[in-house]
Amino acid sequence: MQFQLTADYIQKVTQLIAKKDGNALRKLLQDIHFADIAELLEELNSKEATFLIKSLESEITSEALMELDEDIREKILKRLSPEEIAQELEEMDTDDAADVVAELDDHIQKKVIDNIEDEEHASDIVELLTYDEDTAGALMAKELVQVKESWTVAGCVREMRRQAENVTRVHSIYVTDEEGKLKGRLSLKDLLTASAKTHISEVYIPKVDYVTVDTEDEEVARIMQKYDLEAIPVVDENGVLVGRITIDDIVDFIKEEAEKDYQMAAGISQDVEADDSIFQLTKARLPWLVLGLFGGLGSVFILQGFESIMNNPELKTLFFFTPLIAAMAGNVGVQSSAIIVQGLANDVVKGSLFNRLLKEVGLALINGSVLAILVIIFGFFMQYELEFSLTIAISMLTVIIIASLIGTFVPIILDKRGIDPAIATGPFITTSNDIFGIFLFFYISKIILGF
Amino acid sequence: MQFQLTADYIQKVTQLIAKKDGNALRKLLQDIHFADIAELLEELNSKEATFLIKSLESEITSEALMELDEDIREKILKRLSPEEIAQELEEMDTDDAADVVAELDDHIQKKVIDNIEDEEHASDIVELLTYDEDTAGALMAKELVQVKESWTVAGCVREMRRQAENVTRVHSIYVTDEEGKLKGRLSLKDLLTASAKTHISEVYIPKVDYVTVDTEDEEVARIMQKYDLEAIPVVDENGVLVGRITIDDIVDFIKEEAEKDYQMAAGISQDVEADDSIFQLTKARLPWLVLGLFGGLGSVFILQGFESIMNNPELKTLFFFTPLIAAMAGNVGVQSSAIIVQGLANDVVKGSLFNRLLKEVGLALINGSVLAILVIIFGFFMQYELEFSLTIAISMLTVIIIASLIGTFVPIILDKRGIDPAIATGPFITTSNDIFGIFLFFYISKIILGF
Repeated sequence: MQFQLTADYIQKVTQLIAKKDGNALRKLLQDIHFADIAELLEELNSKEATFLIKSLESEITSEALMELDEDIREKILKRLSPEEIAQELEEMDTDDAADVVAELDDHIQKKVIDNIEDEEHASDIVELLTYDEDTAGALMAKELVQVKESWTVAGCVREMRRQAENVTRVHSIYVTDEEGKLKGRLSLKDLLTASAKTHISEVYIPKVDYVTVDTEDEEVARIMQKYDLEAIPVVDENGVLVGRITIDDIVDFIKEEAEKDYQMAAGISQDVEADDSIFQLTKARLPWLVLGLFGGLGSVFILQGFESIMNNPELKTLFFFTPLIAAMAGNVGVQSSAIIVQGLANDVVKGSLFNRLLKEVGLALINGSVLAILVIIFGFFMQYELEFSLTIAISMLTVIIIASLIGTFVPIILDKRGIDPAIATGPFITTSNDIFGIFLFFYISKIILGF
Repeated sequence: MQFQLTADYIQKVTQLIAKKDGNALRKLLQDIHFADIAELLEELNSKEATFLIKSLESEITSEALMELDEDIREKILKRLSPEEIAQELEEMDTDDAADVVAELDDHIQKKVIDNIEDEEHASDIVELLTYDEDTAGALMAKELVQVKESWTVAGCVREMRRQAENVTRVHSIYVTDEEGKLKGRLSLKDLLTASAKTHISEVYIPKVDYVTVDTEDEEVARIMQKYDLEAIPVVDENGVLVGRITIDDIVDFIKEEAEKDYQMAAGISQDVEADDSIFQLTKARLPWLVLGLFGGLGSVFILQGFESIMNNPELKTLFFFTPLIAAMAGNVGVQSSAIIVQGLANDVVKGSLFNRLLKEVGLALINGSVLAILVIIFGFFMQYELEFSLTIAISMLTVIIIASLIGTFVPIILDKRGIDPAIATGPFITTSNDIFGIFLFFYISKIILGF
């Protein structure tokens, strides 16, 4: 059942494009799902892709365009006239259409909107463009099925038939009063089972979750996930129903958020992908590497401060342990911060800070002790003096405890100050823990061994 | 509109539980959403939580139980009798019920299932338990609305009313032939607009995406995301419709997958959370730290091999740069591997390996050169000999190139061999890059400076 995009298939398509044979293209691709058309478009150059889009029905291509990566879509749209773009927008849901318009250059935007024939659709798109990014208003679509509480079930079904024309999927039927204020919802099940003459006011469910146009997108995702909602209505400041957000928009959002946290932890700012340009990838990666470099140069000074022990046959061995200490401090810090960052995102970081402190110190003590014992065993095989092995073990244990505390509390503090704690995982924690760790290690060794 | 779980509220609940006042509890909690009940349960100890569950309607508590963390649910279920568990299961969808039964001890499972009154529900659960974990069979629910192609629209609506009783949300109506083989689907829209006497065979959509019971869960998630499906039917090896998977199950799956990758990158195996026990957290974290320790001990030998230069006033400065080199090798490796791991997960790693190699080397050269220049500037201020600064810069540049190649190709190779490439991000890459990096740095310096 799955369509396979083979090299042969792509070749066939590019040959038809080269021959400018639109009819044959339409025939070849008539039963292909728009998501597969999108994959095909990504394999073509933008000139070929544009020809393909012009050849096919905008019913299909509008959906395929929405599946494309933003930069590819942008390149294709640059090759289309405002009229042609408007045609695509006519077929899109208002939320998608508004996203596309927002991507266009300012001077094109107005031309495109003026070319949309359906005036209601055009004004809906313009309305959506007025909401702030990252709010429910920017996420929502205007398409929904809305009935008034005063209607009968029969009247409602009649009206729904009309409205359903514009709505791809009927998730819920929203009930409003005469002024359009959201009153509740109606399940399809109830509609199926109620008699034709019943008034909606008698059968609707007055409890309905909703968000307002200025609710943050993160909060929308949290509510929809927590309450297992497939769609949520959006109201304006007066409680008037103005749109709805569906779960598929949120799925993308959730995935992007998780990926963003992951990338931040790996020291990559901005949303980049393996097939982005070298310039984009450099912009996302280099700043973190520079941060790491400064951290490393800081360690140069710290180590220089302990230069004198290089002349001592036994003490100089401490220098051989710097990579180990840096690795332990970094790894423990990243582990602690990742757990806290995910915990903060999923709302499982509860209880007092003091309890969390106890737990982290406990954890670090257990992990650190096991590692310390391994170091002592290593020292035994290396025929180090026991005092020397113990010094390394104790210093390392202290470094691990401090590193785990830094890893735990830096994200918590950032979160309390309203800064995304995810920036504290990855290079930021690794770098600061490297420096702290190396300094602590030498300093504690100095105290114990008295050099 | 949002319910806020305050400390006061929790106290009120625990007081009522202490007084064993079930009626007052029911009254207090009657309008609370099950997701909020679940949050409340997480704040109680398992004895209190069990009392609460016994006091409320199983219609609510069954849903709340499904929202709980597995370990909390387990503790509560241990305090319930097989009859009481069976009552909860009666109210759950078959997929959730099967998940709960699978979590029970073997000797309880049979008793619980025997206590389920609805025999069809019980046998559905038993059927779901037979499918392998990580397959569509294990993800699907038996609840769905199914009509036969020979029926009329009127008969269909009648039958749907009956079936809809058991189905929480009607996503799609699936059309089968007399033997139950999946033929297509029917949209609610079509049903609303067709006349009562029309036969289903005339209005149904014969194109329908589906998966088989043994399709892997990852593949199900991919298909549902790619084709924007909110539900997908599942068929057995004969094409007979046996269940359906809904998007909410997949949302959880997508989130878990993304979090798993993130945790692996941070050196945390298994799915742990901030509020898990110290023992569980240690089990998930310690192995990676031990790996890092072994890597660090390996570096001890490498550095020992270059011990002799400690007596050279200028050359010994190289030792001060080991943390910097380790940090650069680690950071670059983690960046490269994170991008590739995400790219592999999202299917954007295309093109030949040779092109990828060129791109990575190009990237590493650009980033590395900027960093190298910064090191030379640093050397100028530190009054190092230019030859010495250049040596450090060149060695570091080489380390960065090699580290980015290891970070890129280890995940690709693992993926080709069917191993989850995510294990290659985090400690695994950092540790091996540390060792390689430090060795290369000293070795190249040795060649250039000839010591």
